[in-house]
Amino acid sequence: MSEPVAPVPTPIEQRELVLTRFFNVPRAKVYRAWTEPELLKQWFAPAPWTIAKVDMEVRPGGSSLVVMRSPEGQEFPSPGVFLEVVKNEKLVLTDAFVKAWQPSEKAFMVATITFEDHNGGTKYTARVQHWSAADRETHEQMGFHAGWGQCADQLAALAATL
Amino acid sequence: MSEPVAPVPTPIEQRELVLTRFFNVPRAKVYRAWTEPELLKQWFAPAPWTIAKVDMEVRPGGSSLVVMRSPEGQEFPSPGVFLEVVKNEKLVLTDAFVKAWQPSEKAFMVATITFEDHNGGTKYTARVQHWSAADRETHEQMGFHAGWGQCADQLAALAATL
Repeated sequence: MSEPVAPVPTPIEQRELVLTRFFNVPRAKVYRAWTEPELLKQWFAPAPWTIAKVDMEVRPGGSSLVVMRSPEGQEFPSPGVFLEVVKNEKLVLTDAFVKAWQPSEKAFMVATITFEDHNGGTKYTARVQHWSAADRETHEQMGFHAGWGQCADQLAALAATL
Repeated sequence: MSEPVAPVPTPIEQRELVLTRFFNVPRAKVYRAWTEPELLKQWFAPAPWTIAKVDMEVRPGGSSLVVMRSPEGQEFPSPGVFLEVVKNEKLVLTDAFVKAWQPSEKAFMVATITFEDHNGGTKYTARVQHWSAADRETHEQMGFHAGWGQCADQLAALAATL
């Protein structure tokens, strides 16, 4: 009997992008801004981009549709599914499914968002994992850090008003 | 404002393989044979292949590891995750994750197994959906119908003894 012969996968560390921010706002408010469509709309696109539409069922297996709109008015729908939902603590979403559990055209990423208490505020972490190192690279080149960073700032500003 | 410009996805019908069988055994027994590792081992590989090891947490987000062994003794581990579990009715598994919710090296398929009452027996359906039409084609060429068909026969024979 030989050893198992599964191909050695690319270590997950080489397939992920991580953004961490500290907000001076309790995590329950940050979580609200993430999970209420009317609030999400106000911060989820890096200005001057906007969000044209949000439909979300925030539960495991629930669908999520966010339509971004460019300054020129072109719309970009992003369908996905929630994999895990822990109120005020954690959200896991992926674009690998368009609804539970129909595969999308392309499994690109899984985003794990965590909300942790930190000095009366929130440690906010977006850990985005990909199926390939190439997709991670593409995502970084697309401006992951600037884009998600700008949105995180917008999120913090909105959550502070709640 | 222009229309949304998401690429038109390949229709899911062109990305799936379906196997249906009617068993003369109540579905609770078929479901048991699917979800108890010691039973799964006895039918899940098409003889003369065998199952060397099964580890399963049968719950949404639970990991599944099945190691197949060829007649020559070579082992092939297949890690995956359960996406949905409805006792005696439905199981949904995918190889897109190695554990909740870490992307695998390759999102190849989602298997939706349904167990329905039918004339005192069971209508057994394995609907296997892929992220691409090419992967569906590969899976069919690998012998999906013969392989899953032979395993379904083994499953029915085992369930009848329970």
